[in-house]
Order: sequence, then structure tokens, then C-alpha cells
Amino acid sequence: MEVFIIGIGLIGGSLAKDIKKQHPEATIHGIDINEGHLDEALEIGLIDAKATRADLVKADWVIIGIPVDALTQELGGILDAVPDDALVLDMGSTKEQICALVADHPKRRNFLACHPIAGTEFSGPSAALEGLYAGKTMIICEVEKTAFKLQEKALELFREIGMRVRYMNPVAHDKHIAYVSHLSHISSFMLGKTVMEKEKNERDIFDMAGSGFESTVRLAKSSPAMWAPIFRQNKTNVVETLNEYIQNLQAFKNLVEQGDFEGMYNEMEATNRIKDILNGIPILNK
Amino acid sequence: MEVFIIGIGLIGGSLAKDIKKQHPEATIHGIDINEGHLDEALEIGLIDAKATRADLVKADWVIIGIPVDALTQELGGILDAVPDDALVLDMGSTKEQICALVADHPKRRNFLACHPIAGTEFSGPSAALEGLYAGKTMIICEVEKTAFKLQEKALELFREIGMRVRYMNPVAHDKHIAYVSHLSHISSFMLGKTVMEKEKNERDIFDMAGSGFESTVRLAKSSPAMWAPIFRQNKTNVVETLNEYIQNLQAFKNLVEQGDFEGMYNEMEATNRIKDILNGIPILNK
Repeated sequence: MEVFIIGIGLIGGSLAKDIKKQHPEATIHGIDINEGHLDEALEIGLIDAKATRADLVKADWVIIGIPVDALTQELGGILDAVPDDALVLDMGSTKEQICALVADHPKRRNFLACHPIAGTEFSGPSAALEGLYAGKTMIICEVEKTAFKLQEKALELFREIGMRVRYMNPVAHDKHIAYVSHLSHISSFMLGKTVMEKEKNERDIFDMAGSGFESTVRLAKSSPAMWAPIFRQNKTNVVETLNEYIQNLQAFKNLVEQGDFEGMYNEMEATNRIKDILNGIPILNK
Repeated sequence: MEVFIIGIGLIGGSLAKDIKKQHPEATIHGIDINEGHLDEALEIGLIDAKATRADLVKADWVIIGIPVDALTQELGGILDAVPDDALVLDMGSTKEQICALVADHPKRRNFLACHPIAGTEFSGPSAALEGLYAGKTMIICEVEKTAFKLQEKALELFREIGMRVRYMNPVAHDKHIAYVSHLSHISSFMLGKTVMEKEKNERDIFDMAGSGFESTVRLAKSSPAMWAPIFRQNKTNVVETLNEYIQNLQAFKNLVEQGDFEGMYNEMEATNRIKDILNGIPILNK
């Protein structure tokens, strides 16, 4: 079993760990434009060997965990390079562009469009975690466009590493994920920015920060190289979520300005229902 | 040692637990307008007895953990009711109004204005946690206005339960805390609201939510009864932080709309510095 991981960071590296655990006989090959990451991945045992695009000719599996802009540039060539029975899957946080891009590729049936709802705010090979995917959701788009045998192969792996699978069309995926993921990241980055700007003049402001602040700005530690391409590709949806979010903030600000106690209270009480919703998310309640 | 806890929820109840642990001989009296909470507190052993305002005549300690609007209504009367050597301290999240309110009270020297940077998104007696305050910051305002002996008494308790102490003036406190606490709560509430509004029509949106979303909306579970009064009392500062936050979101939205990759990247990279800042917050790194 020859597995190629293209992009050996948090996402690809964590999957490498899980595959190695389930399939000790597998050889994990790493491909990465960052030579330092590749050396590190080899050193910490994430991969068995360094490889290049030319080696893909012997691939059984190709797993692509690179920023979505690089993904759109590379996927066509990767599909060209693999054998006829190889399975190529991506792990990108946007799905519409990538699915459109390879719609007519002669090896479209070798490709499975995936998005694992898993991760941390860290990046690079050292961020890879065994068991990252256990209990998490794998979203698969346009499953019908992938060869049956390869669908089965992928589902078997996802089952082995403890994932639950949801099928969506790529347009709905990009729209929904803008709300529950992309918007959270921007809200967190801008919150961090707002407080840091203040801190320039107010040195001990962070001395007053508690776990609530930490929780809301955690995502502001995320990798810009990964997120800038996501926001660019999912522009329309991201802008829509931002408009709605800004509108809601503006409305709440008006309530504060007017000292409208009841209005503030009601808004917060209505939003408290998020408790039940979060409790209903299986991946958060393992 | 006769300790009166007024408001026996997350904040007061947690302190009751810590005091009982450090001073098993202390009698903890509970006062609460919510009779159900009082019964619950007695049942789970947070307090030894139920009490009323009239019992304050025998108090050594009075700890007030009630919403800040109730606090401004009650503090004067509480000070009137306690003996001359009692220590009264509040735990409110705003300090300017409360300090101004009692500035000329004949028992001003019996009062210590406190704000513990500790808590969770839960509330009520059952939310009380032993050790909640260990390693956390206690902000004290206008310490010089409290009698020496009572200052010492309070500091001794804070030391016993593992808190570090920071002194600030109430105006600076309210300004800074708006950034690192109040704004986080509003950003979280409005994020929850934005996504829930979308969910009305898109049932499976939350199926796609991961731990990043959970982290950014955690504070939206917080108690409106506690937070609406805070936002009302700290109106000017809260509106200022919201203006800056909305401005930053708007600017980022423009970058997304313009497809300005470099602009987005730079904003996020600059904000990544929050990593070092968060690592530098001792309470988050025990």
C-alpha cells in the first residue's frame, strides 16, 4: 500500500499517523514544497520517505492537504500523474472551485472531494496528532463522480479512523461552512486585532484577560497561508456571513447605546439556545 | 468566622467552597432572592444556613456575587447593616459606578471593590467549582479607601485560594475589561445569533460545526441576567470597543471583497502575534 501525502502538516500529517496505525504495512511517502517540513516529517516518523511528483506513478493513495489555492493549481497535474486505479482525495475547506475545475478531467473518477471537520489552530508536521479524526465528520462532495471501488476504499479508511460521513453538494458545502467555520475565524482574527491595537497604548490590558477571551481569540493563531486562500475562494459566501454578522453587531451596539436593557436581555436569551445546539453536535460530545 | 455570601451562584458559590476548604470552622450563610437557589445551595452543602439582610449584623465577611445592577441597588443598604469591623467585598465585572456610588458612604472603609477574572459560561449554585480561583487574577480598585486591617484580611484569603492580585483605578478597569471580556461576550453572542438565524432555513448547518465554532460561541451560553447589566453600566466603553471591532470587520470584509490576498494575509499574520501574548498570560498557562 503506497500512500502519498502531499502537504505534510497538521491535516496530512495527522492522517499519516492514523493510516500508519491502521495499516502498519503501508509506506507513507511525503511530498511538500517546504523541504524543512519534509525533513522534520521524516525525522519524527510521520513519513517513511521523501518523494516527488514523478513518484506518483506508483501511488495507491494520494492525499492532498495543502492550501486551497495550491490545490487548484496542482490537482490536475496530480491526477495526470497517478495510475488508473489510484485514489486521490483532497482535504480542502472549500469545494465548489475544486469540483468545477476537475469536472471534465479524464481521471475525474479517481478523485474524491473531501473536507474533514477537524483541526487545531496549529500547523506544520509537529502539529500532527494521532486520533485527530476520531469522532469527527468527513464531508464528501459529488461522491457519485468517483469510481465505486475507490469510494469504498475511502469509506473503509474513514470508518477505520473513526469518522462519520456526510454527503453534500459543493455549493451547499461552501455556503454552510462559511457560517460555521470561516466566519468564526474572521471574528476571532478581528477580535484579536481590536484588542492588540488597544494594547499598543495600554500595556497591561492582557493581564486582565481570562479564559473567555482565550476561547474567542484561539482561532486567531491560525495559519494565514491556509486561510487567505480559503477566504478568497469562498468570497461570496464569506462576504454574506460578514454582512449579517456586522449587522447583528451593529444592532446590538444600538441596544447598548440606547441602554435598552430588555432588548439586550432578549437577544442574549434567544441566543442561549446555542447550548442545546452545541449539545446536539455529536463530535463535540464524545 | 461568620461569612455571608449574597448571591450564591457560580461566583459566590465557588468562593464559598474555597473558604470552607481553607477555614472549616467558618459558618457560611447564604442570601439570595432566588429561594430555589438558596435551597439548592443548602442541599449541595455550599452554605450552612439560609439568612436574610437582618442577619448581617453578626457578619465578619460579606461577599456579594450578584448582577451589577442589583449590586448598585443593594450595596449601600448592606454596608448600613454590617458591624463596624466587617469586610464587605463585591465581585462585579464593572467598577466605576459602584465605587462612585459608595464614595461617601460612612462605612466606605469596610468595602473592598474586587473583580475576579474567573468564571465559566454556566450559572447558579450547581455551577460552583472548587478551585475556580486558583491561579487567577483578582483586580482590586481603590484599595487605599479600605481599612488597612480589612485589606490585609482580604489579601490573606486571596493568597490562600491561590489568586494573584492587581491594583487598578476603576475607570481604567472598566475601559480595559471592555476589551478583554465584554467585547468577547458580545462577539460570541452575535456570532451564535448569525449562525442560528441561518440555521432556521438550513437544518444541517450545525452538522458541519467543529471545535473552532464551539470555541468562538462558547460565551454565548452566558447568563443574560448577569451580562445585560454589565453592558448597561459599561456602555461608553463597550460601544467604543464595538465600534473598533465593527470597523476592523468591515475593513477585512473589504479585503475579501476585493480579493486582496496580500491584505488578508498580512492582517492575519500580524494578528498571529496573539499566540505570544496568550502564552504570556500566566493564568492561561498553569
